[in-house]
Amino acid sequence: MDISEKEALEYHKKKHGKIGIAVKAPILDKKGLRLAYTPGVAFASQAIAKDKKLDRVLTNKGNSVAIITDGSAVLGLGDIGPEAAIPVMEGKSVLFKEFAGIDAYPISLAEKDPKKIIEIVQALAPNYAGINLEDISAPRCFEIERTLRKTLDIPVFHDDQHGAAIIVLSALINALSLVKKKAEDMRVVVNGAGSAGIGTMHLLLLYGVKHIIAVDKHGILRKGLKGMNKYQAEIARLTNPERSGGLKEAIRGADVFIGFSVGNVLTKPMVASMAKKAIVFAAANPTPEIDPKDAKEAGAYIVATGRSDYPNQINNALVFPGLFKGLLAAGASEITPEAMVCAATCLSGLVKNPSPGNIVPSVFDKRVVETVAFTISQSGLCVCKY
Amino acid sequence: MDISEKEALEYHKKKHGKIGIAVKAPILDKKGLRLAYTPGVAFASQAIAKDKKLDRVLTNKGNSVAIITDGSAVLGLGDIGPEAAIPVMEGKSVLFKEFAGIDAYPISLAEKDPKKIIEIVQALAPNYAGINLEDISAPRCFEIERTLRKTLDIPVFHDDQHGAAIIVLSALINALSLVKKKAEDMRVVVNGAGSAGIGTMHLLLLYGVKHIIAVDKHGILRKGLKGMNKYQAEIARLTNPERSGGLKEAIRGADVFIGFSVGNVLTKPMVASMAKKAIVFAAANPTPEIDPKDAKEAGAYIVATGRSDYPNQINNALVFPGLFKGLLAAGASEITPEAMVCAATCLSGLVKNPSPGNIVPSVFDKRVVETVAFTISQSGLCVCKY
Repeated sequence: MDISEKEALEYHKKKHGKIGIAVKAPILDKKGLRLAYTPGVAFASQAIAKDKKLDRVLTNKGNSVAIITDGSAVLGLGDIGPEAAIPVMEGKSVLFKEFAGIDAYPISLAEKDPKKIIEIVQALAPNYAGINLEDISAPRCFEIERTLRKTLDIPVFHDDQHGAAIIVLSALINALSLVKKKAEDMRVVVNGAGSAGIGTMHLLLLYGVKHIIAVDKHGILRKGLKGMNKYQAEIARLTNPERSGGLKEAIRGADVFIGFSVGNVLTKPMVASMAKKAIVFAAANPTPEIDPKDAKEAGAYIVATGRSDYPNQINNALVFPGLFKGLLAAGASEITPEAMVCAATCLSGLVKNPSPGNIVPSVFDKRVVETVAFTISQSGLCVCKY
Repeated sequence: MDISEKEALEYHKKKHGKIGIAVKAPILDKKGLRLAYTPGVAFASQAIAKDKKLDRVLTNKGNSVAIITDGSAVLGLGDIGPEAAIPVMEGKSVLFKEFAGIDAYPISLAEKDPKKIIEIVQALAPNYAGINLEDISAPRCFEIERTLRKTLDIPVFHDDQHGAAIIVLSALINALSLVKKKAEDMRVVVNGAGSAGIGTMHLLLLYGVKHIIAVDKHGILRKGLKGMNKYQAEIARLTNPERSGGLKEAIRGADVFIGFSVGNVLTKPMVASMAKKAIVFAAANPTPEIDPKDAKEAGAYIVATGRSDYPNQINNALVFPGLFKGLLAAGASEITPEAMVCAATCLSGLVKNPSPGNIVPSVFDKRVVETVAFTISQSGLCVCKY
């Protein structure tokens, strides 16, 4: 089911993009005009001026999320700029609406300075009940996300980090039960220490994984390695106490490989050097770190990729619609790491009879969004102010 | 047809605000997902990365406008902050969509520094084909608007200035034909030198009005008057060469009074002191500068107000939907003062048989938006880059 360039461009041209504004209450007469705009609207504004929390009652804010990017790391395309990022942000908005009924407003910023991006998002925040950061290059994304999480009173979610982390953890939970291994005993190699890799490692550590080795283009992240940014140095402190070298050295004896890197970097001999019942998540797009067939031949027991044309798709679209729906329903003022683990556990539970070829729910499974949303909103793990 | 507070709040509560996101092409299956999002969307992004102008073909940008406020001068309510401004911005978005089919995105900024607001709007600009500034207090609004007009390659319209100016000019054109006076001979008094007053005076000067006296709370704006901001000082240089004092002194012998000030400041004796066949536009909201009945009794020949329950409503909603529709259709990169005069002339022409009680078209007249849009897009007065 490949999509051709022609087909994709025609699809986008046909209606000039994919989203627009919907009016909830059409204006049918003079009275409608006087209710929706002046003078009636003044009562709504005055009510909010007196009690700010009424903004979620009298406006669409409670169902609104901003999708913020600077176009610096769009899909696998790199720094293509804010204009070229718009189709992706519109697509994301479509998924928010179609899967979760959330009104998500795409905002591609012509600004690259992390400090200024932080200021801009802080200034935009009053309009939304949540912020979804998207496709911002590492390590800039970490500074932006961490500062915004600290300073805003609405949830800030960076899909490239947290969406990836949650879906990987959910798949891993099912994989572990199939191979009868425990999180705390597992040796995990994460290849690629950008936003997805670093986000995933933090969540795995929180979940109880004790042995992680992070590998980047410079080799195994370890104390004293040159060329690491401060977020990689932080991960180096929290992981690998012993090994040096590259992926080949890291993967020997590993139970789990998680890749957010580039195609074809994981060889069959490397997979063969892993522990028994090895788990391989080759999430690089569009070409996985290893072809699933090769991974299986080399001895992997469970293989997942980022692609929809292989079994076990590691797909962020399983996460953000339900998670945000739950956060908005709860009136959450932040999203905690514990809530992320909760979302991962919930997603893993949606696969009724896990098997090596079935550890992730389908993105078209209608239960996914509703179940994740309900679980999150009822979890007691949301810090709520609204 | 008064709107009660209860009615207005219930209207806003019922659906939690007035707008949301509309999906143009619903996702029905896996293929739809692959067209709207990854991997298909990458082709659209790459096409725009190669040729930026394709953003208007492959995304909704060409039909998108940002409604930007900082909540500092909302309706007659003053500085009520970004949250309380949201109902008004949503209402504006409803008018954009309902009257002109334009997707207008409300953005209330938690930022008051004009320089930072300028930076933020510059960073937001890639998403939109036009900027509508709204309810930003004077004189800050002038710096913001002028800098953005200079630096952005999309039209920047400040409704409080330009919308007011255009609708006033259009009403004045019809009024002048009724009283058989010429623009260049007329003596005009503008009371209130905020955004609407200053915007209107600049447009009247461009139209050929030669004798304007501006009055503010400090009195007649004139060389050497203390307490003027730089935009008022600029107007003082361009207008009144002779008089000092207040409104009473300014209005003696005037042909036209235009008020964007506060209720009941224009007395019957003042109107009586005006020239024969006096024109009074008392646009203060909700209470006009003089009650239309009193104005007529004191000798005014034509009276207009900002209210829909009197004849001749000076209403910005007659301007921005059609004007923006024309600008977007033309692919305009700016809106020139000449295009504003063109819009005013077009609006005045839509009143077939003007009479003292009928100098402005109805906001429900379906011809208004289409005619203004067509006239603007075909006028040759748009500077177009797209």
